[in-house]
Amino acid sequence: MPAKARTIDLNADVGEGYGAWPAAADTELFSLISSASIACGFHAGDPTRMREAASLAARNRVMVGAHPGYPDLLGFGRRELGASAPEVRDYVTYQVGAMMACAAAAGTRVRYVKPHGALYNRAAREPAIARAIAEGVRAADPNLALLGLAGSALLSSADEVGLRPVAEAFLDRGYRKDGSLVPRDDPGALIHDPSIAATRAVRLVIERVVETADGGVIPVAAESLCVHGDGAQAVLVLRAVRQGLAAAGISVAPFSR
Amino acid sequence: MPAKARTIDLNADVGEGYGAWPAAADTELFSLISSASIACGFHAGDPTRMREAASLAARNRVMVGAHPGYPDLLGFGRRELGASAPEVRDYVTYQVGAMMACAAAAGTRVRYVKPHGALYNRAAREPAIARAIAEGVRAADPNLALLGLAGSALLSSADEVGLRPVAEAFLDRGYRKDGSLVPRDDPGALIHDPSIAATRAVRLVIERVVETADGGVIPVAAESLCVHGDGAQAVLVLRAVRQGLAAAGISVAPFSR
Amino acid sequence: MPAKARTIDLNADVGEGYGAWPAAADTELFSLISSASIACGFHAGDPTRMREAASLAARNRVMVGAHPGYPDLLGFGRRELGASAPEVRDYVTYQVGAMMACAAAAGTRVRYVKPHGALYNRAAREPAIARAIAEGVRAADPNLALLGLAGSALLSSADEVGLRPVAEAFLDRGYRKDGSLVPRDDPGALIHDPSIAATRAVRLVIERVVETADGGVIPVAAESLCVHGDGAQAVLVLRAVRQGLAAAGISVAPFSR
Amino acid sequence: MPAKARTIDLNADVGEGYGAWPAAADTELFSLISSASIACGFHAGDPTRMREAASLAARNRVMVGAHPGYPDLLGFGRRELGASAPEVRDYVTYQVGAMMACAAAAGTRVRYVKPHGALYNRAAREPAIARAIAEGVRAADPNLALLGLAGSALLSSADEVGLRPVAEAFLDRGYRKDGSLVPRDDPGALIHDPSIAATRAVRLVIERVVETADGGVIPVAAESLCVHGDGAQAVLVLRAVRQGLAAAGISVAPFSR
Repeated sequence: MPAKARTIDLNADVGEGYGAWPAAADTELFSLISSASIACGFHAGDPTRMREAASLAARNRVMVGAHPGYPDLLGFGRRELGASAPEVRDYVTYQVGAMMACAAAAGTRVRYVKPHGALYNRAAREPAIARAIAEGVRAADPNLALLGLAGSALLSSADEVGLRPVAEAFLDRGYRKDGSLVPRDDPGALIHDPSIAATRAVRLVIERVVETADGGVIPVAAESLCVHGDGAQAVLVLRAVRQGLAAAGISVAPFSR
Repeated sequence: MPAKARTIDLNADVGEGYGAWPAAADTELFSLISSASIACGFHAGDPTRMREAASLAARNRVMVGAHPGYPDLLGFGRRELGASAPEVRDYVTYQVGAMMACAAAAGTRVRYVKPHGALYNRAAREPAIARAIAEGVRAADPNLALLGLAGSALLSSADEVGLRPVAEAFLDRGYRKDGSLVPRDDPGALIHDPSIAATRAVRLVIERVVETADGGVIPVAAESLCVHGDGAQAVLVLRAVRQGLAAAGISVAPFSR
Repeated sequence: MPAKARTIDLNADVGEGYGAWPAAADTELFSLISSASIACGFHAGDPTRMREAASLAARNRVMVGAHPGYPDLLGFGRRELGASAPEVRDYVTYQVGAMMACAAAAGTRVRYVKPHGALYNRAAREPAIARAIAEGVRAADPNLALLGLAGSALLSSADEVGLRPVAEAFLDRGYRKDGSLVPRDDPGALIHDPSIAATRAVRLVIERVVETADGGVIPVAAESLCVHGDGAQAVLVLRAVRQGLAAAGISVAPFSR
Repeated sequence: MPAKARTIDLNADVGEGYGAWPAAADTELFSLISSASIACGFHAGDPTRMREAASLAARNRVMVGAHPGYPDLLGFGRRELGASAPEVRDYVTYQVGAMMACAAAAGTRVRYVKPHGALYNRAAREPAIARAIAEGVRAADPNLALLGLAGSALLSSADEVGLRPVAEAFLDRGYRKDGSLVPRDDPGALIHDPSIAATRAVRLVIERVVETADGGVIPVAAESLCVHGDGAQAVLVLRAVRQGLAAAGISVAPFSR
């Protein structure tokens, strides 16, 4: 009896330049991923870049996602900002709407939303913020999926407000025992070795587990795998991941809607 | 034989605060106008304010418009910025999309777009910029109307790209013989007397003419009348205009779509 | 034997508009205070407004202070931002330097620095941030005084790095037993009654105590009294405070350097 | 009889990143230039980067300049902005003051100011703007030199207000017959060939002439030579220029003050 055909979504952040400052390696990234989370102008990204990224996605048959962040260009959306839940909700609605129009200008559509940086992390642990994000997305378009860390408050909130929750796992970030990510400034936060990422990808698809920074293994049920690293490094990791997945008979395609 | 029932649209800019800085007299404005051009975050406005303005509009049965401007918060979008036509097009798409989502969050919809400040003025005289704006609007939603100065390049461009053009006339700005506005810093640019504005409104509806700064009269066919002045002054002008229109048997309602 | 002549400094935040958005009641404020903390462009304020505020201060014999905040125009610097200590240090140096030049352009000089909003509050409780601010100020000019909440980490840091620490007390904010302020969103955070503020001012100068929100009294040794409320309300409070101080034989003048 | 020892200043723009976006090749640039024009946060640059660039300059015995631009991060200060002369003056004062403090934090001092991009170009042709810049610089510190295009209105204004004018010539930009630069988007605007730049540098020092885009030669008396190109290309050009200058017996050192 033949094995069931396996498929997984690969997502990465793209369009994270601003004006004259480029986003590293975007063009190459598009040939390696199946979902592109496009920055929406608050932490990075600008109107022209958003339209162009959506256009590149369309040409590469890559699914378009909106990647809203805190209004903190100077900190690249990686710093916690004490915005209230209603503020967060409205920031998300605004950015998703802007991305929807830029995608339309490129002849395509936004299919999902994934919050960026500090907002993503806060949404993983603060239910009120997770809920605000989910409401902000639903207000813009109730047919959008909401991508978040497997097991996070963000996915519960997606479910609560009637959005399709999509769990993701990170191929290049360290995991803690409780399923949360090792903070970016701590040792073990980043995985630079492409072969480790590739092995992790295959295991996530077949065994549905991930290795933690302390050497253990925890169950993770993910519909999408994220390579988060910027530019050149992300390309190297993604190439290894695609080879590893192909060798294991796993194809790469957008998550189903 | 009874006279034909006459109707005219009254529009004003609203939501032009930012964060902690309020937009003067917005709440009262909404009871006096039939169309609200809501600032979209580039020259003024922010996500929360945009949602709230759309919500106020809905409650007052006021039609919602997007009011995109140059990315120049410090200059309130009133300074010329040498953005290229493609940049302008994308800035418009982005802001209109953001406003569409904020309107959706408030349970309503954007029906038209009116560019702000220096962008509006440039669009009146530069066909390439007018065209870029029209294309930027159409990309976001081809069903939107495009509001511009009667006789301007912007309205021709709306027509060219298949958008519904809506001509407006200003009740509180001086006109030159060629139908353009007296520049904001020149004498006669602003009309502060509510009774003059009221008389002008009635004449625009019934005779389809406007007085120029040099005492002449030129034909102006407008579907919408704009009171542009900020805050308290706009309220005084609008009250007088509504009284004048009512006395002349003219009712106020959104332009037809 | 005659009583010792008593003097106290009265400070308020000024210049907190941005571009087209005004700062309420600034002109009147300058006739009531002896020290002006001028916003430096990150949470509010802009180059022209900074020069003008310094000019107004000079004309009114008011001492000029720099009032640096987080780079969060949208949140008016009132939201916590997870900036690192080195970032905070550099933000302070930048803003103080900008203010120094704007003051020079107005023919005057910056004499002190007082952090704004969330940065002020964080500096009251986080020694590393307090130290970063003090270092940022010293780097710009080691002769500047550093104004902070009486008893706060900010004043200790000023002392450590060799800056003159100046303790202030608030006339219009609620106090907790430990000398910290009642958070802005909690009940009792704001004191609106001018007569209460006036009584508090006199007591702070003569008895060196302040009433807490729970009805107690704590010792507070302050060289400057702050009225923090915006615009019209601040003017009312300051008028009552000046009357109260005058009636008690206390004169208002900048703190000594 | 030995030839007179010849010396010339080489300047380049540095620190033109923002937050997470790097400025290309800054570290290497510092070993090749004698004057560094550091972006001040309006078109590029941020407080931390400004302090670090000043620190790198000090370590490399490179003279520190402030490089103020229009407040247009999205357009990298390359787009014309209709700011008024007083606004421009205050923008310059603000940015120069910020840079002065950041330089002080790095243990060094700002010695000159060179406007950036569209502001530089406008100052070359509009006397009122040139004058506003010169006044803005003088207000911050009357001992600063003002660097501008040889023969431009900016240098006349420096002279008028009592600042030291320093004429510069560009090694990698095309010249027109009247001594102005070929606009950035026109053919011949940019010179990419390092050997042409090197030959031009030597000729500018020895013969005090520059070749124009149409093949002629015009006199240019420059105290500083600018390589303007970003990052990697600038490094290649500067290396060739230094070799060419050295071969011609010309040493590189900051212009005298």
